[in-house]
Amino acid sequence: MTPEHGPVGLTELPIGIFDSGMGGLTVLRALRERLPQERWLYLGDTARLPYGTKGPETVARYAVQAASHLVARGIKMLVIACNTASAVAMPRLSKEFTSLPVIGVVEAGAMAAINASKSGHIAVLATESTVRGGTYKRAIQSQRGDAQVFSQACSLFVALAEEGWIKGPLVEAVVREYLQPMLEEKKRQGLDCLVLGCTHFPLLKDTIAHVAGPGVVLVDSSETVARAVEKFLHQSNLARTSGSGDAHFLATDSAERFARIGSLFLGEPVNLQDVELVNL
Amino acid sequence: MTPEHGPVGLTELPIGIFDSGMGGLTVLRALRERLPQERWLYLGDTARLPYGTKGPETVARYAVQAASHLVARGIKMLVIACNTASAVAMPRLSKEFTSLPVIGVVEAGAMAAINASKSGHIAVLATESTVRGGTYKRAIQSQRGDAQVFSQACSLFVALAEEGWIKGPLVEAVVREYLQPMLEEKKRQGLDCLVLGCTHFPLLKDTIAHVAGPGVVLVDSSETVARAVEKFLHQSNLARTSGSGDAHFLATDSAERFARIGSLFLGEPVNLQDVELVNL
Repeated sequence: MTPEHGPVGLTELPIGIFDSGMGGLTVLRALRERLPQERWLYLGDTARLPYGTKGPETVARYAVQAASHLVARGIKMLVIACNTASAVAMPRLSKEFTSLPVIGVVEAGAMAAINASKSGHIAVLATESTVRGGTYKRAIQSQRGDAQVFSQACSLFVALAEEGWIKGPLVEAVVREYLQPMLEEKKRQGLDCLVLGCTHFPLLKDTIAHVAGPGVVLVDSSETVARAVEKFLHQSNLARTSGSGDAHFLATDSAERFARIGSLFLGEPVNLQDVELVNL
Repeated sequence: MTPEHGPVGLTELPIGIFDSGMGGLTVLRALRERLPQERWLYLGDTARLPYGTKGPETVARYAVQAASHLVARGIKMLVIACNTASAVAMPRLSKEFTSLPVIGVVEAGAMAAINASKSGHIAVLATESTVRGGTYKRAIQSQRGDAQVFSQACSLFVALAEEGWIKGPLVEAVVREYLQPMLEEKKRQGLDCLVLGCTHFPLLKDTIAHVAGPGVVLVDSSETVARAVEKFLHQSNLARTSGSGDAHFLATDSAERFARIGSLFLGEPVNLQDVELVNL
């Protein structure tokens, strides 16, 4: 099932989604719920995941390779579902693919946080690399200069989500350990918004919400990016208006693992025959 | 500090150690304690870690690239400190580098387990890929046909070790969750030996030993590989007999992270200026 390369209208082309692995399938899930008629071409760079612990130059290079591959297959727009790539590679991608609309999870998440927070005290939970890069902080403060952004790297959340350990006392204990400093900020500074700044984290959403307690709005970047894509498609007349949507998956390693773990993130089975191995 | 390429005797050359990341530094630590006069050239393929979730073909290809790089710099022998690479790439490495002595952690760990177990019921804790590959099981059963090998993938242990969470109630709860099936085997079958089949796991050794309880011998492959290297050097007259040893580090990404997290695994500071970035 290869997307057509022929003289189809631009609207008929799939939307490319790129992530370092399977986490971005939480974004695809939100996108499909909101835009069921669209066609999707998802690329997970599973051979080189995780991006969260790699240097910015390396991640930017990988993102350009992935985008090139998707563009060569024909896409009408590109969603960077990977927070790390969105955080470090957006300027490079915009420069190298000037005519391609690109939406990244970081920008969408930052906007949603600004809209959700009354106090301006916002927490971002992310991978080590996203936190170190400080991109959510910059993206939020560029829109609201007086915002106070409290960032917390939660490295274990990725492993928990991939293991399918998403609730129960053990998971709650891990979440509590990471959220402790944030909870003190809540008490002291009226922190009222928490951004799930990694695509793996929505799987732990219920537990995170429970630990964060009342008075804290959770921003799930998969939902916010889906809204941003919907808005863009309608504004630019690129939305597909008929037919039923479909999805095709590309992975750079281990199609079997992609299908197995990916089903957790997509919330429905990923069929092994829909996963194509590619070399970037 | 580049190893000499000139006409030095073979004994003066460093010993190459290869791992997917920093975990192999637990092996280097054991090696340096046992062989303080040797020189070490450690390569961590940090840009592509972890190997534990990647396919065997990919891992074998990476291992050959890493070995080629170390051989080009001049080494007298090679230690595969990465369990995943040792599990899947040893045949390829032996074929491509016929004159280079290669010792892998899996073989060393398997031998130690056979010697340690009275009942022949042995547990192996490892990454998902090592468990799926079944290599420890094969390596153990090839030496002792009647051995019963019980394997358990403990994906979260890697994240715990890298986070520096190595003891306390939370860590114990995670260890207990993974060891539960093994503990039932202990009760039912007299399982009496537990192999730490991933270089990250020795950091959690105390907690694992506590949960495993009395009557279970822990085999730490970093120690067993160090003994195997010592034995080989003496048998082949390749041991360095004078001078003080040293270590030089190569990483494929993020020298800063290598030095920072690496210090946890090496048990002493890794200086940033001793870490050289390389491209494989």
